[in-house]
Amino acid sequence: MTDGAFLAIDWGTTNRRVYRIAADGTVEATVRTDRGILAMEPAGYADEVAAIRAEMGDLPILCAGMVGSNRGWAEVPYLPCPADIAGLANALHWVEPGRTAIVPGVAWHGTAHADVMRGEEVQVLGATLAGLTPATALLCQPGTHCKWAWMEDGRIDRFTTAMTGEIFSLVQRHSLLAAQMTGTVAAGDAFLRGVADAQGGDLLARLFGVRADFVTGRTPAGDEASYVSGLLIGTDVWARRPAEAPAIGLLADPVLGALYSAAIAAAGGRATLVDSHSAFIAGITHIWRHAA
Amino acid sequence: MTDGAFLAIDWGTTNRRVYRIAADGTVEATVRTDRGILAMEPAGYADEVAAIRAEMGDLPILCAGMVGSNRGWAEVPYLPCPADIAGLANALHWVEPGRTAIVPGVAWHGTAHADVMRGEEVQVLGATLAGLTPATALLCQPGTHCKWAWMEDGRIDRFTTAMTGEIFSLVQRHSLLAAQMTGTVAAGDAFLRGVADAQGGDLLARLFGVRADFVTGRTPAGDEASYVSGLLIGTDVWARRPAEAPAIGLLADPVLGALYSAAIAAAGGRATLVDSHSAFIAGITHIWRHAA
Repeated sequence: MTDGAFLAIDWGTTNRRVYRIAADGTVEATVRTDRGILAMEPAGYADEVAAIRAEMGDLPILCAGMVGSNRGWAEVPYLPCPADIAGLANALHWVEPGRTAIVPGVAWHGTAHADVMRGEEVQVLGATLAGLTPATALLCQPGTHCKWAWMEDGRIDRFTTAMTGEIFSLVQRHSLLAAQMTGTVAAGDAFLRGVADAQGGDLLARLFGVRADFVTGRTPAGDEASYVSGLLIGTDVWARRPAEAPAIGLLADPVLGALYSAAIAAAGGRATLVDSHSAFIAGITHIWRHAA
Repeated sequence: MTDGAFLAIDWGTTNRRVYRIAADGTVEATVRTDRGILAMEPAGYADEVAAIRAEMGDLPILCAGMVGSNRGWAEVPYLPCPADIAGLANALHWVEPGRTAIVPGVAWHGTAHADVMRGEEVQVLGATLAGLTPATALLCQPGTHCKWAWMEDGRIDRFTTAMTGEIFSLVQRHSLLAAQMTGTVAAGDAFLRGVADAQGGDLLARLFGVRADFVTGRTPAGDEASYVSGLLIGTDVWARRPAEAPAIGLLADPVLGALYSAAIAAAGGRATLVDSHSAFIAGITHIWRHAA
């Protein structure tokens, strides 16, 4: 039942990507929309999926991402770490048996804290299975909430999430520094100064320093957004000890990929860029083939 | 000219306090309003000061605080560190000679960064001169922008400012965690967990952990605001190495004073609460008596 063509849906909070995947694993069609779960009514998923089949083909569907959260179509319990493809495939939530399923998220339960992901597990496991990264590696997915997954022999051993992108956005939009942060963020000198300053562990003072350096005329205006981005990404990256990682894979778009690559290099690590769409397709296809 | 009674004004961004100080140093009257500089028009200061004299007495006036900034009455250049009372008194900006003056702010120029204060210099120097804290001490003024001043032999040797209160406010009002942060902040167990977690230097991940611990049912809901306050104040406090300070004085209201005292104690230091109004009055009186 799960060896033929199917529709794979990466259904996140604000965006959705539907891929038609042939029996041989080829991606035959891709449709991206902004119909993320925030654009959906809880009762609207059945009709939405019918519309997707009408457009993309009357095939089985496997969804992953926030669609499996309490704000999505159905709340699917998290699979605990260590998590692998077989574990996810065995824990699918079948909305309609054999026809429509949702991939569970993954939870990590540490001594002092827990962490959760929904959707990223498909990418990081797919990156490993497709050989895009080594089976033992540190994988990073930057964004509003940056995920770092420590992969061991192809499994998600543990992971942590940092509010890096969200805090940057709050500072840029609402803080005392907002008026100074209108420039484009780039991985240049100002960004690298921020990364270096982040190593001191004094983020809150270095943020005010942006204002103080401006008031005292110490730094030229214009590159504050890059500096603050460097401070925040640097704070995130240093805490992950990238110099100790056996390998680092970066599942990111070119903009965030360039920033995180530069910060990881400054912190003594070396990251390889991985195409996150290829990783997702590899992961979801493996899950589907494993499904009972 | 400066040995008689005068009016001292602590004129900040959102609030203003006017004190009538007798020739013997006694505070005869205090009036607090919300007529901070944000409530003022640039051309309105002369009339405002005339109204203050009409209400409080026709006396010389000495103002300190943001009234001396580029958004205030007149932009008064910063006095560089190390800064003391005589230096401030010699650098007063006389709006009307012998009649109305503004205390300059203080700037610190480090190798890599600078910092600035306006108004806090009167308090920290006053605390020392009045014997409220030792002449060599670390003084802390918590708030939206928390000031830490290293005093050496009664001078401001250097200082740093942390955006602690502002980041707390942004997270509480605008972040993913906002809905969880409706409780009252108190210096209890949740706050101290935050302070302890801050020592790891992974603020961005610990913030997301508030969400993850909630989603996984790990921590009871209700004390997230205290925990996040502990994380941020803890991040601020650990960076100051309070265990190494010869003495720590805390110029704070009771609420912030309790939080910072608890965080400083958890980080191996010991803070003494200092009344910030007494410190201001001592400082401004000393400046006035020193004025030429």
